Amino acid sequence: MLGIELNRKSELYLWHQIYQNLKELMISGQLKAGEALPSTRELAKELDVSRNTVCEAYDLLIAEGFVISRQGASSRVSDGLCIEPLEPASSPKMKSKAVRSISVSFQTGRPDLRQFPRFLWKQLLHKAYEKLPLETFDYTGPQGLSELRVEIAAWLFRSRGLKVASDDIFITAGATHGLHLTADILCKGGQKILMEDPCHTGMLGTLINKGCSIVPIPVDDRGIQTVHLSKYEDSSAIYVTPSHQFPLGGILPASRRAVLIRFARENDLYIIEDDYDSEFRYSGLPIAPLYSMDPQRVIYVGTFSKAVFPALRIGYVILPYQLQKRWRDLRTHMDVQNPPLEQAALAEFLRTRKLDRHVKKMRKVYCRRRKVLLDALGEAFGNKWIAYGDAAGLHVAVDFPGMSFGEAFKKNCLQNGLYVTPLESHCLEKGRHQSKLLIGYGHLEPDAIKNGVVLLSDIIEKSSF
Amino acid sequence: MLGIELNRKSELYLWHQIYQNLKELMISGQLKAGEALPSTRELAKELDVSRNTVCEAYDLLIAEGFVISRQGASSRVSDGLCIEPLEPASSPKMKSKAVRSISVSFQTGRPDLRQFPRFLWKQLLHKAYEKLPLETFDYTGPQGLSELRVEIAAWLFRSRGLKVASDDIFITAGATHGLHLTADILCKGGQKILMEDPCHTGMLGTLINKGCSIVPIPVDDRGIQTVHLSKYEDSSAIYVTPSHQFPLGGILPASRRAVLIRFARENDLYIIEDDYDSEFRYSGLPIAPLYSMDPQRVIYVGTFSKAVFPALRIGYVILPYQLQKRWRDLRTHMDVQNPPLEQAALAEFLRTRKLDRHVKKMRKVYCRRRKVLLDALGEAFGNKWIAYGDAAGLHVAVDFPGMSFGEAFKKNCLQNGLYVTPLESHCLEKGRHQSKLLIGYGHLEPDAIKNGVVLLSDIIEKSSF
Repeated sequence: MLGIELNRKSELYLWHQIYQNLKELMISGQLKAGEALPSTRELAKELDVSRNTVCEAYDLLIAEGFVISRQGASSRVSDGLCIEPLEPASSPKMKSKAVRSISVSFQTGRPDLRQFPRFLWKQLLHKAYEKLPLETFDYTGPQGLSELRVEIAAWLFRSRGLKVASDDIFITAGATHGLHLTADILCKGGQKILMEDPCHTGMLGTLINKGCSIVPIPVDDRGIQTVHLSKYEDSSAIYVTPSHQFPLGGILPASRRAVLIRFARENDLYIIEDDYDSEFRYSGLPIAPLYSMDPQRVIYVGTFSKAVFPALRIGYVILPYQLQKRWRDLRTHMDVQNPPLEQAALAEFLRTRKLDRHVKKMRKVYCRRRKVLLDALGEAFGNKWIAYGDAAGLHVAVDFPGMSFGEAFKKNCLQNGLYVTPLESHCLEKGRHQSKLLIGYGHLEPDAIKNGVVLLSDIIEKSSF
Repeated sequence: MLGIELNRKSELYLWHQIYQNLKELMISGQLKAGEALPSTRELAKELDVSRNTVCEAYDLLIAEGFVISRQGASSRVSDGLCIEPLEPASSPKMKSKAVRSISVSFQTGRPDLRQFPRFLWKQLLHKAYEKLPLETFDYTGPQGLSELRVEIAAWLFRSRGLKVASDDIFITAGATHGLHLTADILCKGGQKILMEDPCHTGMLGTLINKGCSIVPIPVDDRGIQTVHLSKYEDSSAIYVTPSHQFPLGGILPASRRAVLIRFARENDLYIIEDDYDSEFRYSGLPIAPLYSMDPQRVIYVGTFSKAVFPALRIGYVILPYQLQKRWRDLRTHMDVQNPPLEQAALAEFLRTRKLDRHVKKMRKVYCRRRKVLLDALGEAFGNKWIAYGDAAGLHVAVDFPGMSFGEAFKKNCLQNGLYVTPLESHCLEKGRHQSKLLIGYGHLEPDAIKNGVVLLSDIIEKSSF
């Protein structure tokens, strides 16, 4: 009598249940090494199952080496199977935090998904699937779908005047992924990376996780202050957002761009240009990427997360030739390649200029919302605030001179149903931007923006920061 | 006269062409710092465009800091713009290698895509897209779609008897991606990883690229030889393929499994269990994962690349609780998350048991092909060969005692239109498996398999290895 209980309603076959029960008895030591198992006939009778069912269980136990069977003798438990039972699972259930309801979230970097042409995208997916060659269901290499790379090159030319060969474009699973792989190439041994300060904490986290040693370089309202670079000639790369500095919003002026390129050349380092949202410029004129000034020194990181949707997980890097072989090797051993379907749909989205149209539409939407936000701030705070940076993107940095916003303020806002980020939380060196807040508005309807500003003004009024 | 030439048929607006031309003149130093630009009226006349067009170009040059404009005075070139011209692009065009035509490829790890239910998959994608909530177009967190994790848990239970909570399952972009992230967790500082030898060179490459220090542990026809483990107590992890050793094909016996678990517990290291193709077992009985013996010590790496298709890029890991927080952080900063559409379609493929059906069908197909291969080998080589490993997977390791296969043999085969891998190329320590070849047959029709074996036998006969 082994005490096996079978559940005849289980999804698991009876033979599998017998097998598992016997295995557990052997591993826990209740069936000891050398002990004889009951014959298949006996056990079948005891459990009221067919003898075949028991045979299947025994066969697997023999195949896996739990049981040794010898012609004419009964099957016996193998040696050395017993292992200590586990302590009761140490995985505590997550405490269900009392979720506070947020009535307005000024989170940054969120496009408005309600405006995405969902039906059109479905048609593109459908069409793309029909046309996908069977080979694309197999491994097709680390660089990405060639049609998509050709369309990205054409799009960069017509929207930014950027001339780039599709062979130099490498599809990624988004900007973060692009930066992760770039860091693998550039700072294997924990080398220094120069980084704008303040910067995007997500991107910072990516570089820190790669073991890079981060050197903060201060930013003003026109981007990175290149005058501070000369101290760090022994670095391996510099990360910048020249088209629309995150989070302060400046456009890097031409003279600083020239300094940056010269500095990179003289000290043999690479510039990582993150162009995360510059599709959305409201003064109407697109900024030329730094990449165009030196395609051998600049690694351009682009993404479709803002222009299409975040969960698409398609971006790209434009790589100097000398890094391409290493990239291919690293990508192959990292996550192999992107899946093909969304790449093909995106290629069609670009080829038919539907992306251009969507971006144009959203530019108008975001521009109007920006105006709503600035008007509401004017109404609530009179002239006691200054909007930072240029008219672009999905957020704005707002300076309230004399104020000081930190974690306590953020928490206070959350308690009042408002999510807003003090700019200090994006700073490596603390204390230089305490009077600024980051307000993301792209995803919010005008009324939500106005309500958010009223809420913000109430909180500021009632507290003393 | 600036020598600007406009192309009226270009995709690029005229103002953009003027802007680019002027910028290039400034960067190359042909327009010098402080030099006055022609007035917008003059330049418009010279180029035969409207004055507005020139104004747009000037505005952007001013916005980007290339040009300084002062009220009432002419616009002037900024200081410090000039940078050395680039040397002619150093990116040589790839030489188009004369591609030799391969008539039979015995590559390993390739499922037969012609048998994939492509129409059904289209329907699942369609249905999944219709049902995807709008929130899933936004960032939804690093763990993966909850429906899919629930379905994977149910599938693992009904197909393998494995009890696992969907909360412990983390969706990945395939097995390589899973191993890449696991290595990030387990061997930050170049710690030792014990690895089966021979092993999958792709997975080996992933660990080497992460900076792991690899210690080879010999494998025999029953998997990793655990007797060699005791020397390496200072390791941080051990990588194994216990259900179907790659490439030798053994099933790890129960007693070795117990040694492995005890060794991991005593020395506080993790076991990485790569279960790359064990859906396809032809003796009919599924092998229980090592994971079931100790969910706190084993990281289970699974993939749908073989059962669905490689370019799907969906796999999963089952993680011990204590590693889950770190995983979430690393994934967020690596590539954020998987895209949702294929996850949702796969969940439906599992929920409706269509995957089970497809696997069952393919098991029969592959089993028949395996028999065709073994029969053909028998016909060609009599009894001068031995098939290694258990009846599973999409490849078989074949031993030709007395022979010696290396790179020269592989090249010779390629020249004769046959792709086949000497097992030695998967070995860390050379010299122990020279008489073996790896033959992948899953993706090949019976006739192709037969032709391949004939080709192989001809090559072996004509050469002296």
